[in-house]
Amino acid sequence: MSVLNEVLDANKKYVSEFGDKGSLALPPARRFAILACMDARMDPAKFAGLSEGDAHVIRNAGGRASDDAIRSLVISYKLLGTKEWFVVHHTDCGMEFFTDDVMRGLLQNSLETAALGADGFYDVGKGPGSSEGKYIDWLTISDQRGAVIEDVQRIKNHPLVPKNIPVYGFLYDVKTGALIPVQE
Amino acid sequence: MSVLNEVLDANKKYVSEFGDKGSLALPPARRFAILACMDARMDPAKFAGLSEGDAHVIRNAGGRASDDAIRSLVISYKLLGTKEWFVVHHTDCGMEFFTDDVMRGLLQNSLETAALGADGFYDVGKGPGSSEGKYIDWLTISDQRGAVIEDVQRIKNHPLVPKNIPVYGFLYDVKTGALIPVQE
Repeated sequence: MSVLNEVLDANKKYVSEFGDKGSLALPPARRFAILACMDARMDPAKFAGLSEGDAHVIRNAGGRASDDAIRSLVISYKLLGTKEWFVVHHTDCGMEFFTDDVMRGLLQNSLETAALGADGFYDVGKGPGSSEGKYIDWLTISDQRGAVIEDVQRIKNHPLVPKNIPVYGFLYDVKTGALIPVQE
Repeated sequence: MSVLNEVLDANKKYVSEFGDKGSLALPPARRFAILACMDARMDPAKFAGLSEGDAHVIRNAGGRASDDAIRSLVISYKLLGTKEWFVVHHTDCGMEFFTDDVMRGLLQNSLETAALGADGFYDVGKGPGSSEGKYIDWLTISDQRGAVIEDVQRIKNHPLVPKNIPVYGFLYDVKTGALIPVQE
């Protein structure tokens, strides 16, 4: 069965068991937001105990405090009233295994999928590639804990973020499922 | 109990039931990615039937194909081998209830939380505000279906996206939990 049909079948089942969730309100009931990595092994609802309606979840490659994550967080508090934010990166993150230069080189060679070797990613695809990768900051990570601290600080110091919003930094351990606090 | 303690307690429970998930591989096992709104009522793992390790999940305000979402999607396929992508917006999205001008005006008045009235958001906070909101494109939505189509097209036409990646557009119905296909 194709992925599309699998997803639609799973969705039919979800609809059949939806219950009274149609009456949930737009603003998050528990008034917090989580910014986390897109990593497939992490499920914020599961590792943080969220039900539908509880909290905003923002995710991108690395769980980085990108301009777009800031956009989402500011909408989250200003328009929908969240009052506490979590930043969750994780161990064994793909963002540690390459640099801007590596990514730009890979994309210059080919747009097809690369492979992960012992020393990082190497290109197995055949062209065409594109130089457009040079215009993107890939927000790679060279220091796991340092990146969490940097992102928490960027959010706290952003001119659109009120000083009274707590921002908690964590590393999620993909081997155990545990949230490890990261502080300066 | 504070939100922070609630989350840490839920996480302890998750760790105690973690099982063999510590052996999951970095690349998504089912080789697809979902770009969805951060809305608290939507849980991509639940509405699409994902287990930990299955798929990348990227989320922001609106589920928009922002530059940062493109960054994440390109990393998802180029480095981690996803081959199909879903774009999932939803009904009753907060992004439909304001415009760039409204958001900029609200932030100029105050950084504190605004309220949602019958005609959209209005400011209830007291200063200080900030003019920094003018430098952000808030990626609001004026047409639910149109925004899905626009975002699918932006992704498909991006110079770093290979032409053979299927990109499926959906609206999630917050009243029923159903994924409604959106096509041009």
